[in-house]
Amino acid sequence: MAINRKKISVIGSGFTGATTALMMAQKELGDVVLVDIPDMEDPTKGKALDMKEASPVQGFDANITGTANYEDTKDSDLVIITAGIARKPGMSRDDLVNTNAKIMKTVTRDIVNYSPDTTIVVLTNPVDAMTYTVFKESGLPKERVIGQSGVLDTARFRTFVAEELNLSVKDITGFVLGGHGDDMVPLIRYSYAGGIPLEKLISKDRLDEIVERTRKGGGEIVGLLGNGSAYYAPAASLTVMAEAILKDQRRVLPSIAYLEGEYGYNNIYLGVPTVIGGNGLEEIIELDLTDDEKAALDKSADSVKNVLQVLE
Amino acid sequence: MAINRKKISVIGSGFTGATTALMMAQKELGDVVLVDIPDMEDPTKGKALDMKEASPVQGFDANITGTANYEDTKDSDLVIITAGIARKPGMSRDDLVNTNAKIMKTVTRDIVNYSPDTTIVVLTNPVDAMTYTVFKESGLPKERVIGQSGVLDTARFRTFVAEELNLSVKDITGFVLGGHGDDMVPLIRYSYAGGIPLEKLISKDRLDEIVERTRKGGGEIVGLLGNGSAYYAPAASLTVMAEAILKDQRRVLPSIAYLEGEYGYNNIYLGVPTVIGGNGLEEIIELDLTDDEKAALDKSADSVKNVLQVLE
Amino acid sequence: MAINRKKISVIGSGFTGATTALMMAQKELGDVVLVDIPDMEDPTKGKALDMKEASPVQGFDANITGTANYEDTKDSDLVIITAGIARKPGMSRDDLVNTNAKIMKTVTRDIVNYSPDTTIVVLTNPVDAMTYTVFKESGLPKERVIGQSGVLDTARFRTFVAEELNLSVKDITGFVLGGHGDDMVPLIRYSYAGGIPLEKLISKDRLDEIVERTRKGGGEIVGLLGNGSAYYAPAASLTVMAEAILKDQRRVLPSIAYLEGEYGYNNIYLGVPTVIGGNGLEEIIELDLTDDEKAALDKSADSVKNVLQVLE
Amino acid sequence: MAINRKKISVIGSGFTGATTALMMAQKELGDVVLVDIPDMEDPTKGKALDMKEASPVQGFDANITGTANYEDTKDSDLVIITAGIARKPGMSRDDLVNTNAKIMKTVTRDIVNYSPDTTIVVLTNPVDAMTYTVFKESGLPKERVIGQSGVLDTARFRTFVAEELNLSVKDITGFVLGGHGDDMVPLIRYSYAGGIPLEKLISKDRLDEIVERTRKGGGEIVGLLGNGSAYYAPAASLTVMAEAILKDQRRVLPSIAYLEGEYGYNNIYLGVPTVIGGNGLEEIIELDLTDDEKAALDKSADSVKNVLQVLE
Repeated sequence: MAINRKKISVIGSGFTGATTALMMAQKELGDVVLVDIPDMEDPTKGKALDMKEASPVQGFDANITGTANYEDTKDSDLVIITAGIARKPGMSRDDLVNTNAKIMKTVTRDIVNYSPDTTIVVLTNPVDAMTYTVFKESGLPKERVIGQSGVLDTARFRTFVAEELNLSVKDITGFVLGGHGDDMVPLIRYSYAGGIPLEKLISKDRLDEIVERTRKGGGEIVGLLGNGSAYYAPAASLTVMAEAILKDQRRVLPSIAYLEGEYGYNNIYLGVPTVIGGNGLEEIIELDLTDDEKAALDKSADSVKNVLQVLE
Repeated sequence: MAINRKKISVIGSGFTGATTALMMAQKELGDVVLVDIPDMEDPTKGKALDMKEASPVQGFDANITGTANYEDTKDSDLVIITAGIARKPGMSRDDLVNTNAKIMKTVTRDIVNYSPDTTIVVLTNPVDAMTYTVFKESGLPKERVIGQSGVLDTARFRTFVAEELNLSVKDITGFVLGGHGDDMVPLIRYSYAGGIPLEKLISKDRLDEIVERTRKGGGEIVGLLGNGSAYYAPAASLTVMAEAILKDQRRVLPSIAYLEGEYGYNNIYLGVPTVIGGNGLEEIIELDLTDDEKAALDKSADSVKNVLQVLE
Repeated sequence: MAINRKKISVIGSGFTGATTALMMAQKELGDVVLVDIPDMEDPTKGKALDMKEASPVQGFDANITGTANYEDTKDSDLVIITAGIARKPGMSRDDLVNTNAKIMKTVTRDIVNYSPDTTIVVLTNPVDAMTYTVFKESGLPKERVIGQSGVLDTARFRTFVAEELNLSVKDITGFVLGGHGDDMVPLIRYSYAGGIPLEKLISKDRLDEIVERTRKGGGEIVGLLGNGSAYYAPAASLTVMAEAILKDQRRVLPSIAYLEGEYGYNNIYLGVPTVIGGNGLEEIIELDLTDDEKAALDKSADSVKNVLQVLE
Repeated sequence: MAINRKKISVIGSGFTGATTALMMAQKELGDVVLVDIPDMEDPTKGKALDMKEASPVQGFDANITGTANYEDTKDSDLVIITAGIARKPGMSRDDLVNTNAKIMKTVTRDIVNYSPDTTIVVLTNPVDAMTYTVFKESGLPKERVIGQSGVLDTARFRTFVAEELNLSVKDITGFVLGGHGDDMVPLIRYSYAGGIPLEKLISKDRLDEIVERTRKGGGEIVGLLGNGSAYYAPAASLTVMAEAILKDQRRVLPSIAYLEGEYGYNNIYLGVPTVIGGNGLEEIIELDLTDDEKAALDKSADSVKNVLQVLE
């Protein structure tokens, strides 16, 4: 019974894809194949080689390779999709959606062609619709196609709360439902510092400000960078999900999941609390929501549906 | 006796500086201040914030801040200089040297103004001359100003050897003297796989190719990336040196050290085997060299002196 | 500004003391001095040497030494007390208390003699009274003498809940007040799985059983081992507290703290939620308690006072 | 394609077995089943539970269970044998060999009964003969039955050298052939500090003393402990071998390997340099030996053969 390293393919070798590759390699989650389009093959190989050259001093054993050939992704245990374009000035949201959907379809076909039993985690925005697109195109069971947004949103929220209270990030938790960014539905009553509900430690006004900052968290980074968007925290968030799957940890993480009746929705990908393990998205945890929360989640779901309609 | 986190300032928020900040924070070596020029203040803050937002999910406690104000570096335990320009097409080597030397002088004055007892590790190229410039400008004792090049060169060498032999990078070691890149003096007889001299495992011709690939290792990445240069392995190399200092580990690492008679050289910074610990560069290890090695090291030293002459 | 490793002394080289030394060394928190009585000097040296011989393969840099001479603990940044006897058959509780109190006084004098500004964490049972004894004997400020019990109690609780729900321990939190074991006051309403209150996920009856198992958690291990008591989880708990102090993390951890009015008590050490950082016990977090919780905490405090009275 | 955690069984729940279980769980190498005889079932369960209760605070996801029923080891990816008795006063070496060989045969039958394709690593002394016994009894291919001794011997050697030179253990390497302890054949010429041959850094007399101390390293701990033998460094050594197999790392490690002509020996298990990976012992590295080294290795082989003859 030979033991082989796990194999992880990361589609898209931009900053987020590359940083995700590095973080997964640092944790020795498996060998990583970084994939991009033929035009980007050399830079992709360059990033992969540079990372691999970091391995002797960082002390990790993981092969990292760059390629434009999907054959190199054959039999991946996990595939992470970061490919896609960012919205450019003057581009309509619909153009963005359709362009990225087209990319999702192409890469998904290539992925499942070589790894028909894999699990796919999607980061590309708008993530709910893109995860849906990948799901439909892949033919994979729903538990094997998962979108990331809530891990990142709560990471930002936790950072801001830790700063506010001057406490270790290790002891702050957050809880979100719904979509990414503006459509995020924060459940403050399920968010804590050392187990103590935040509402007991931070004034409502200040909490509202922190929630608002979290909602705009991606934009804050875009604004500061001037050129490009966040990639460190997104990569770390993808790495947590990858680790939960590859080490079969059954972590409780917010994920973009395919709903079939849960929370009253059908045939839609939406952010909900889930259990992530070796089978992918192993469970959706259903919670009683307050009327306000349910209304906010409805709004979030409507927003996702609107995007899906763009995809006719 | 209150215990405070260590404070590390990284000058230059480009890819190498930022990646070094991340890797040091991941290891919880201390709080990190990422510094750049006023024009880059916002992107620097953006990168720092993005990294900090990764901390809740990566599980590290470290504050990471971006700034253009050296006051924020006050009382740093360690300062890492990655600032400087890369050689652009049409730029003479002398222009590069003089431009970066000017940058070194400015940042060094700012650093020691706020941290008069700190230790400085320099990465900026040409690293031997730039470390010399920082040393002279800083007024710090020689053991507190160290250049990095050999950790990176051996990391690349180890990567290529591990690939050649299909063995874990953990069990491959390399050994270099002299300058960075072309001026590198590899000591193959002190390079091993699992303790076995490489000469017993790899043919001389193949070893020569690997050495040559190592020499051109930076250029290989530049060529692949098309735009920009390596930063993952350089950042990992700086992180190893930072860890050795901040955890007082007394690691045996190749460093760019100020020589006062060692190996027959004086008043020059050159790559030699050293012991790095809580006092900075704690020892220079002197080795008997073969005539060939000594000749190659002389050539490397001449090359450094030529660069120093450019600095009038 | 030379950087030196932190120095940690562990008083008591039994299984808990030794395992704590190992776990702290694995995390490179500092050099560890393992201290026991002269009769145990050789076994203490033997354990320390065996651990140190593990360091090359475990990859940690930490000196571990065994001694019976408190001079070797000079200038410790942190001292952990695990010394003391366990209750033997036929021994009255009062005998146990008085014997261990005598040990606490002796070791405390020796500790502060050589490290007058240190921080002390106490594990010896009955921990509330022993921490009080160390505090009074040491002359240290209250924030520098801390007892451990709640980290261990919640670790056990989290283990049982993770097993019950088949979820990662990483996502389960628990919350306790009051004394150790039987006197523990669990705050189930502040205990979660992935942020979701446990009461929504586990029936009240089953939760009661888990709480009861936690209360008797130490006894369960004693019963199984037949000879001796738990040491892995206690050592891990001490290591978390040590890390929070030595890395100045400001973790939110349950600690045995000296109360001066908090929760309505005075001149008593009792388990409460605290913030642990570089200054030791930096804050006590006060919570509103329900009448039931307050009554249970009163009972726990009475129990501590009864023990203190034994110490005349 | 569901992903399951690796499964590791540790036979023998004494200090070495238990510490190995802990160290493997800390590295999240897989779920661990700790196995002992029915009389020891409760203490075994107690140790396993205590370790598992450490997991929430140590932050590792690994199930650890204790059992006396080999059915619980079913489909183990790796089995580590630490079971066996230590030599007691008045016991002849032959009695020890025969008693432990009987134990090896029994546990091996039970292991392969439930995990017919597993890999087995043996620690029980005399380790060369016991690994041979397990190999013959198991019917497994030779690459799947490996003995541990050289990782431990070199770990001790590295510790002593690091202390002698006041350098990080990370930069010291050692190299041994042959048997454990007295029969160890050290190859000083392949042992280094930062890549520099130790002969250049330490006098021959002092090196001889260090080698002699290494040979007697187990005895030194036994002498200090007074009761029992080393377990921290042995457990760390087993953990390195387990990690190399379970993460398919192709580490270069000294192992007790079955020889079929290598180094001129046949049908014997002896310590040689090997490559350890996902297929177990993937390669034996053959080196040219000096006449002295060959003579010492012959002596070591004779010693193993003598022990094997005891087993008729």
